[in-house]
Amino acid sequence: MSAPVTATLLVGCRDRTGLVAALSEFVFANGGNILDADQHSESESGQFFMRLVWDLSAFRLDRPRLGEAVRDLAKRFDLRWDLTYSDQRPRVAVFASRTPHCLYDLLLNHQLGEIGGDIVCVVSNHADLAPVAAHFDVPFEIVPVGADKPAAEAAQERLLADRRVDVVVLARYMQILSPGFVARWEGRIINIHHSFLPAFVGARPYHQAKERGVKIIGATAHYVTSQLDQGPIIDQDVCRVSHRDNVEAMVRKGRELERQVLTRAVRLHLEHRVLVSGNRTIVFG
Amino acid sequence: MSAPVTATLLVGCRDRTGLVAALSEFVFANGGNILDADQHSESESGQFFMRLVWDLSAFRLDRPRLGEAVRDLAKRFDLRWDLTYSDQRPRVAVFASRTPHCLYDLLLNHQLGEIGGDIVCVVSNHADLAPVAAHFDVPFEIVPVGADKPAAEAAQERLLADRRVDVVVLARYMQILSPGFVARWEGRIINIHHSFLPAFVGARPYHQAKERGVKIIGATAHYVTSQLDQGPIIDQDVCRVSHRDNVEAMVRKGRELERQVLTRAVRLHLEHRVLVSGNRTIVFG
Amino acid sequence: MSAPVTATLLVGCRDRTGLVAALSEFVFANGGNILDADQHSESESGQFFMRLVWDLSAFRLDRPRLGEAVRDLAKRFDLRWDLTYSDQRPRVAVFASRTPHCLYDLLLNHQLGEIGGDIVCVVSNHADLAPVAAHFDVPFEIVPVGADKPAAEAAQERLLADRRVDVVVLARYMQILSPGFVARWEGRIINIHHSFLPAFVGARPYHQAKERGVKIIGATAHYVTSQLDQGPIIDQDVCRVSHRDNVEAMVRKGRELERQVLTRAVRLHLEHRVLVSGNRTIVFG
Amino acid sequence: MSAPVTATLLVGCRDRTGLVAALSEFVFANGGNILDADQHSESESGQFFMRLVWDLSAFRLDRPRLGEAVRDLAKRFDLRWDLTYSDQRPRVAVFASRTPHCLYDLLLNHQLGEIGGDIVCVVSNHADLAPVAAHFDVPFEIVPVGADKPAAEAAQERLLADRRVDVVVLARYMQILSPGFVARWEGRIINIHHSFLPAFVGARPYHQAKERGVKIIGATAHYVTSQLDQGPIIDQDVCRVSHRDNVEAMVRKGRELERQVLTRAVRLHLEHRVLVSGNRTIVFG
Repeated sequence: MSAPVTATLLVGCRDRTGLVAALSEFVFANGGNILDADQHSESESGQFFMRLVWDLSAFRLDRPRLGEAVRDLAKRFDLRWDLTYSDQRPRVAVFASRTPHCLYDLLLNHQLGEIGGDIVCVVSNHADLAPVAAHFDVPFEIVPVGADKPAAEAAQERLLADRRVDVVVLARYMQILSPGFVARWEGRIINIHHSFLPAFVGARPYHQAKERGVKIIGATAHYVTSQLDQGPIIDQDVCRVSHRDNVEAMVRKGRELERQVLTRAVRLHLEHRVLVSGNRTIVFG
Repeated sequence: MSAPVTATLLVGCRDRTGLVAALSEFVFANGGNILDADQHSESESGQFFMRLVWDLSAFRLDRPRLGEAVRDLAKRFDLRWDLTYSDQRPRVAVFASRTPHCLYDLLLNHQLGEIGGDIVCVVSNHADLAPVAAHFDVPFEIVPVGADKPAAEAAQERLLADRRVDVVVLARYMQILSPGFVARWEGRIINIHHSFLPAFVGARPYHQAKERGVKIIGATAHYVTSQLDQGPIIDQDVCRVSHRDNVEAMVRKGRELERQVLTRAVRLHLEHRVLVSGNRTIVFG
Repeated sequence: MSAPVTATLLVGCRDRTGLVAALSEFVFANGGNILDADQHSESESGQFFMRLVWDLSAFRLDRPRLGEAVRDLAKRFDLRWDLTYSDQRPRVAVFASRTPHCLYDLLLNHQLGEIGGDIVCVVSNHADLAPVAAHFDVPFEIVPVGADKPAAEAAQERLLADRRVDVVVLARYMQILSPGFVARWEGRIINIHHSFLPAFVGARPYHQAKERGVKIIGATAHYVTSQLDQGPIIDQDVCRVSHRDNVEAMVRKGRELERQVLTRAVRLHLEHRVLVSGNRTIVFG
Repeated sequence: MSAPVTATLLVGCRDRTGLVAALSEFVFANGGNILDADQHSESESGQFFMRLVWDLSAFRLDRPRLGEAVRDLAKRFDLRWDLTYSDQRPRVAVFASRTPHCLYDLLLNHQLGEIGGDIVCVVSNHADLAPVAAHFDVPFEIVPVGADKPAAEAAQERLLADRRVDVVVLARYMQILSPGFVARWEGRIINIHHSFLPAFVGARPYHQAKERGVKIIGATAHYVTSQLDQGPIIDQDVCRVSHRDNVEAMVRKGRELERQVLTRAVRLHLEHRVLVSGNRTIVFG
């Protein structure tokens, strides 16, 4: 039995009476069977967030008309919204440099069909990881990043356009992207930071952690914004360390965390479970 | 600003099209503002579960009429349901024996106003913990449990009736309750088992754990059913142990887990976040 | 069977060949049976750390002569050291203000005999927690802290001297201690910070955490130094939060963490398992 | 700077006075600098365990004479012991079937030089994973397991002998090994069980876990003995699940756990940190 095709609607807006009813009634009245409804109202900020998933088998609106209807709802309730279909899998580009662990994890999960999207290419400024991409049958593109950064980014943008990429994942990419690139891809670039943010922002966090004698280290996956390491956090995780862990051992433990957290964050994003609100995320787990 | 009075509706039934819409439309049509809606459909079992919380400030049905209306909905959709009001706090009796840690935790959280209900009495077969109850200004009742168990249980039942108790919490009570008692309180007695069930069912789990050389121990809060230690699990937690932990150290770590897990489970129950389905629970966290 | 009286020696020094042999041979040659030996050499810093525990039943040196012998060893190897006896339990003063949860946890663990020391008084700037200390039969002393801080600290110092206090535990005390006080008690004051340091240093960490949208919060127990919130970390722990947790819920979860971490850190210190090296700790777990 | 060559001695015996001193004195008297000493005495069982690592740079005994000296010590103190050298890396064979995730994790960690040994071949009853081994430049051997199990095991034993294998790792191998094979490799075969043992022994643990409604699932790495799934546990880990996780999601989360726990256990074993005592392990972490 194959899973039915579904629509997923993410909405955020100022809270007001009747939103849950209006949205679920809209789906029901048009023949959709709601499979998952998750809603959250925040009394402090007065914001309303909802994720609705419904079966399209007996739904009476085709996609153009559904889009139009959602736009009408959005106007009426002043909604920020995102509408996606389960048979249109997001197309992902992974940016990597020389460090393989996050890339392996993404590609293996992709191969197992467990990432909720399609990795359509790996982009790197070095050739080192080409065999990894080849092993998983994913195209590999080298875009050297030298003195002329704008040219490199232009080449990257062309690649992303050619391959109709929806989401960029930075799998330990190690290069700073320009504000323009970041702005164009806002809400669609995910980075893994090798630290439990907001502690140890910046470089060499494990050295900082060792020096500070912390007992727990972490990793953080977040959307990239113009504020370095300050974008909305999607997921985090931690593990214990002790004086017995030297910096190398911390790096190794951190590596474990990085790939777990990045893959989890990518999956949450590709399954349309993440809503950004200001500098925070609402994650419908 | 005081929080508004709310109604909470928990429902479970066979899944069918339109349930989310029907339930949320019902609330909206009568002037209720939905504050929290959480729904889960289980494709394997074909079951539907939902928790709806709404503000009663502008709701147009009074409580008798709301009750009637929910009964009508229940008949129409064949719902199992539970309807509660935030201004009618559940009344809790804690059964304890001689071990104080879980009792302290419940009473302290109660005093801090963080348990979602009122602890109206502590019942024990020993006098040891009377000062603890007194310290927190909660009535303490001794019901010795000797050869005549039915008499003891009859006395307990009278106490529970006199104090209009809704929920019984076994805080390391250490006595087996009769099938009759358990049946009368089904879904309303919570126990803490000092083990990560289903491992180490039965007595002396830390000795068993030590002997087996496990690296992680746990504790489990569950509803009591006629099957000893087999009732629906509400919450569990674990912590690491090593060969350096002797049985005493395991007991101490286990004690920490027990009180955390029991208090958390009691709070989840008293906030009407737990639905029982067969031998499992759905916990709307 | 009562446990034998033991000696515990903690040493730190520059690493050199033969330290483990010299120290263990010293114990053995004098008739001591080593119950626990834990050693750590740090290649980065070239430091050596060791914790030795031995049974004194058949030990041939009395305490004055043992002290002298250890001083000789210390001179020979240039050791920092600490020598303690299991029958001389450390005497603890808990400083608290109005928040009860950490105080309860310390006093309950003390009552259960599981803290490795004796809580000889509770000192507070408010009367609120007097009944808690009374309930656990621990003397309670009010030292108001007003405009004349030096006078208040002088009164506190007199109390600590009168009661022969070895260790001061700040159980959510909320007052800044003077540099002089801190210097006199260096390595012997433990604080709980309601945050996963070094993130969210300073006030209202849960508000900061909520605003930043972190997915994990933590608590940190550390020695107090003249650098606010920057002293050597003894223990930390974390728990998950989500958008569903408002600031109040974070405070509640944080409270759970605070008392667990503080009690654990106090136990580690009182069992002489913590060595300070620079701004870090070595914890022999 | 390359790390110095070290010797690692693991010993277990009945506890008696002077063991730490005798062992460390032996190393020191022969010019060895102890880098790591970790010892544990168990009062319940009266057992003594120790792990000693020392720098061989200035050690005065060559390997044959060191071996002889250790045999003498072993006779004198009735020791079980294991002596290894850091420049003689253990040779590992990984047995796999069709499931790739554990194999990838071991091979990637091997490639990164972080497993403490050399993976010298992958043995499988199917051809599916040949490209994975090839990608990491590790020889792949197919040994079909059909009706004639003894013949298959004889072929496996020949392979292990040819490649001078020290340790066999079952990376989701899915085949039952004969008692003879297990006995010959006792203490040198590591398996990953996709469950938090001792709960859910046997097949389809995630289905069992789903049905029982547990809130936490786990994985367990253990030595293989003649008692199926009952051998000494090396490491375990857990993660949270909820009603939102169907069996597939549990399998995916479990897979994450399996590979982490197996790789960690293999590393602990290859770094000579694990001592077996009866049916338990002492892990010098």
